[in-house]
Amino acid sequence: MSAARPSLRADARRNRDAVLVAAREVFAEQGLDAPLDAVARRAGVGRATLYRSFPTREDLVRASFDDNLEALEALVAEHADPDRAFEALLRTTAELQLRDLGFIELLARRGPDDAITHDIVERFLAVLREPLRQAQAAGLVRADVAEDDAMLVVEMLGAAARGGAGRNDRALALLLDALAP
Amino acid sequence: MSAARPSLRADARRNRDAVLVAAREVFAEQGLDAPLDAVARRAGVGRATLYRSFPTREDLVRASFDDNLEALEALVAEHADPDRAFEALLRTTAELQLRDLGFIELLARRGPDDAITHDIVERFLAVLREPLRQAQAAGLVRADVAEDDAMLVVEMLGAAARGGAGRNDRALALLLDALAP
Repeated sequence: MSAARPSLRADARRNRDAVLVAAREVFAEQGLDAPLDAVARRAGVGRATLYRSFPTREDLVRASFDDNLEALEALVAEHADPDRAFEALLRTTAELQLRDLGFIELLARRGPDDAITHDIVERFLAVLREPLRQAQAAGLVRADVAEDDAMLVVEMLGAAARGGAGRNDRALALLLDALAP
Repeated sequence: MSAARPSLRADARRNRDAVLVAAREVFAEQGLDAPLDAVARRAGVGRATLYRSFPTREDLVRASFDDNLEALEALVAEHADPDRAFEALLRTTAELQLRDLGFIELLARRGPDDAITHDIVERFLAVLREPLRQAQAAGLVRADVAEDDAMLVVEMLGAAARGGAGRNDRALALLLDALAP
């Protein structure tokens, strides 16, 4: 009996991981309104198992995009040239959007739930704030570009990402020009 | 019996007009995948009546956005300053997108049917071609901006339009800067 417990816990962990991998794929393909049944099916678990790990859609969305936010936080923290971190952040965000409809929707504040999109946009803004200020101080970005303008740029990059990689690159080039002094 | 005919025709015309008005509203609110039942319901007609006037969704979408395209064609044809017609075209397109999710989807080539979005985008490009060339000749738009870049700008304006009028204006200002030499 004492041997069964770790194994139960290991099972639960495996199921949770499977749900998370499936959720990332399904949200990426279908957006944030995707049916949770599709997530459970792809993970090979029942609905009850899914809800045990993630009681609400909000919990699942939050956990699914945690990796993206952590990657962006690490990118900024570790960037060799702080003056260029803002541009790198926009470029990497655009690349993440290219293969993820859910992330596009989230950054455009069109998630199924205001609380979750609000929190994630706030977290994204917290990542963006210092690099934007630094790029402005270095004369690489116009002084009149507010945080909300940067979010608008991210949203426009999301629209371009839906058209594929080529359009995404062109959009980034045009928008970096727009932001330059 | 000879009196009945014009009245029948008048009825059919009234129904057709009601369907078209309803379709414009429903596509604007819900996008191009909106259920045609919602259109019939709002028009106060049965499905059979709707299909009599518009046998396919494509017919209905095409007829619904004819006014927008005509308005843009007239804007360009009648603009007082041909050098500025391109900017005016972008501005008016952005205004139309602001209240019309269906038009955003159409210009972003995300309609339910490739043939219809293809035709409408081709028609839009035909409106845009000469003003773009003229704005470039006048030195108001960079020479390396291709028609496809202009469509990308329209798509990005569409993304901003979903955020409301204020974001739309700011997006237009940023994008006009991006296009300037």
